[in-house]
Amino acid sequence: MKFLINKEKLHYAIQNVQRAISHRSPQPILTGIMFNCADGFLKLSATDMELSVNCSVPASVSEPGSLVIPARYISEFSKKLPDVPIEFKTVGGSNLVTIRYGQSELNINGYSAADFPAFPVPDGEFTFTIKAEEFKNIIKKVAYALSTDDARPVFTGVLLEIDGINATMVATDTFRLAMKKFKLESAPLDLINVIVPGKTLNETVRVMGSCEELKITLSSNYIMLETEDTAISSRLIPGRFPSYRQVIPDSFSCTVNASIKEMMDAADRASLLAGERNSLILFQTRPEGVVISVRSENGWIREDIPAFVEGEKLDVLFNVRYLCDALRSCEDDEISMKMTGTYTPALLNPPGDNQYISIIVPARTSKE
Amino acid sequence: MKFLINKEKLHYAIQNVQRAISHRSPQPILTGIMFNCADGFLKLSATDMELSVNCSVPASVSEPGSLVIPARYISEFSKKLPDVPIEFKTVGGSNLVTIRYGQSELNINGYSAADFPAFPVPDGEFTFTIKAEEFKNIIKKVAYALSTDDARPVFTGVLLEIDGINATMVATDTFRLAMKKFKLESAPLDLINVIVPGKTLNETVRVMGSCEELKITLSSNYIMLETEDTAISSRLIPGRFPSYRQVIPDSFSCTVNASIKEMMDAADRASLLAGERNSLILFQTRPEGVVISVRSENGWIREDIPAFVEGEKLDVLFNVRYLCDALRSCEDDEISMKMTGTYTPALLNPPGDNQYISIIVPARTSKE
Repeated sequence: MKFLINKEKLHYAIQNVQRAISHRSPQPILTGIMFNCADGFLKLSATDMELSVNCSVPASVSEPGSLVIPARYISEFSKKLPDVPIEFKTVGGSNLVTIRYGQSELNINGYSAADFPAFPVPDGEFTFTIKAEEFKNIIKKVAYALSTDDARPVFTGVLLEIDGINATMVATDTFRLAMKKFKLESAPLDLINVIVPGKTLNETVRVMGSCEELKITLSSNYIMLETEDTAISSRLIPGRFPSYRQVIPDSFSCTVNASIKEMMDAADRASLLAGERNSLILFQTRPEGVVISVRSENGWIREDIPAFVEGEKLDVLFNVRYLCDALRSCEDDEISMKMTGTYTPALLNPPGDNQYISIIVPARTSKE
Repeated sequence: MKFLINKEKLHYAIQNVQRAISHRSPQPILTGIMFNCADGFLKLSATDMELSVNCSVPASVSEPGSLVIPARYISEFSKKLPDVPIEFKTVGGSNLVTIRYGQSELNINGYSAADFPAFPVPDGEFTFTIKAEEFKNIIKKVAYALSTDDARPVFTGVLLEIDGINATMVATDTFRLAMKKFKLESAPLDLINVIVPGKTLNETVRVMGSCEELKITLSSNYIMLETEDTAISSRLIPGRFPSYRQVIPDSFSCTVNASIKEMMDAADRASLLAGERNSLILFQTRPEGVVISVRSENGWIREDIPAFVEGEKLDVLFNVRYLCDALRSCEDDEISMKMTGTYTPALLNPPGDNQYISIIVPARTSKE
């Protein structure tokens, strides 16, 4: 293996693959990045056996070859290199790579590329493309509702349903739910219903950079997402996603329209008094607007939020983080909140948007 | 107590006093900020009984008075307030303060101001002024060599020696030492030799903002540093500072002149291979330049640094952090390093600067 590359390209490719590196893997080779050079390109690959990422960048290749280089050295090192051509070179079948920059050099023992796991490519049952901006927006709107509890893997993933050209993505941690509908340009032959790991989707958004379009390939147990230079492949999450449709309320006794910023700022201040990240705030709908309040042993706070309220007076306890996450995800100036009672789920979305909804379940206090 | 203030002024004053708050003090009142309003000013004070800070900002005062407000609420809260006039009000002799902003309000239980410790003002034996920029520069140049080991308090402070108009500040953690000389505009009657807590000096730099001049008052056991709106007062550290003069070498067998940036970058890269923050690098002076190298079980790195070297060939082991801290503190393009041997202290400063020196003691390996 022998190639020349510039610092920016090397660093970019390492950044793109690095979340898939398993730094604490019992298999030492998985703590490394596979370097493979041929035909004018350097391809880097990393995998934690769930998520695999590869990234290709142009390089001046004089001897094709490959080697796995320990990530802990090469990743930090690539940031600190001077702005000169960087040469990577292995001698014969040795696992020692010499990296030359200017008059200086680093020599690192790597691992044989032959032992590195192959990149999993789903045998494509269905492939579609989506505009990068649209994909980012969808993930932003649903991913906040993902659970981080690995004990219930289904909730750490996003449901992707495709029925003809109609697609839906849904995430829920059982305390809140976010659903976004969108259209595809082509339709699969059969219904598709798969659960994509949240980490895979968030990672895809991170590496998309300025790419314009994303190509997505699905099989029954794998998903691959490709930009121009980077491919992300991951196992799907097995299991059944809960039947979310029955959770979505369809009749309401009270609707609130208010400024998202004003409501978020008020909830944010009120939460300070409650003192914890998952603190509860009392949300009251009144004819003249919404009142958010918190009472603690140290004092109390009352926030008056101008709002257009229609329907009955309701007193609801919300987890302030769930409320703020849902408000933020709307990415709009105004929120429409629809409620039916003190203990029933509230539905939030930007007024008039029927492609997106966010649901939060009110809290019950220990007294009840 | 009743006053109106805007958000920026309130937040600025809280920021300036907040490092002196003792969040975990067994005395609850010390976890608060004292608010005192009178004569068109709001004065905030906080203390941890070692360091005390107060800050005055203009306010529209309608009823003079004072109250200690728990810092954990008011500090975060001041950041999140809307951009409207903020009213603080207590009723009668009560410790409950009502903070009104727009239609909303926060009510917090405070502590009686009568129980808050008085701000310690040294009965000034000597007062001098110094340009803010010069003071910042001096602290930056010496504070990096401070120890953080509270078991040896003397080394957590900066020695301030004043002899006529000649002042010297020195810090050392026994592994390295930094010394900066400067001139005063006025001279004390006697020699001054005090140890100022590093925290006090760093905190002063932090709150100085755009102030032009600092007024410093010294007594035998206190120091007070004043900007236009903020005063910092602190106990001096008792004890004897080590006689640092005998540590400073005055004859050398090798001198090196090199680019600070090139040497820092090289040391930084080399340290990656050694893997720890306090890792050792081999520093070799050769007729053609300096070589920095590290060898580990995973590989080796060799950095060639162009340098003008005069004198004997030396092989010295440095703690890379000590070397980089000393290089950075010079704030110059070029470094002059003077050495005598493998185990004797090296002296660093910008070429031709005889007001500043940095000393680092080479490491000894366990083999020796």
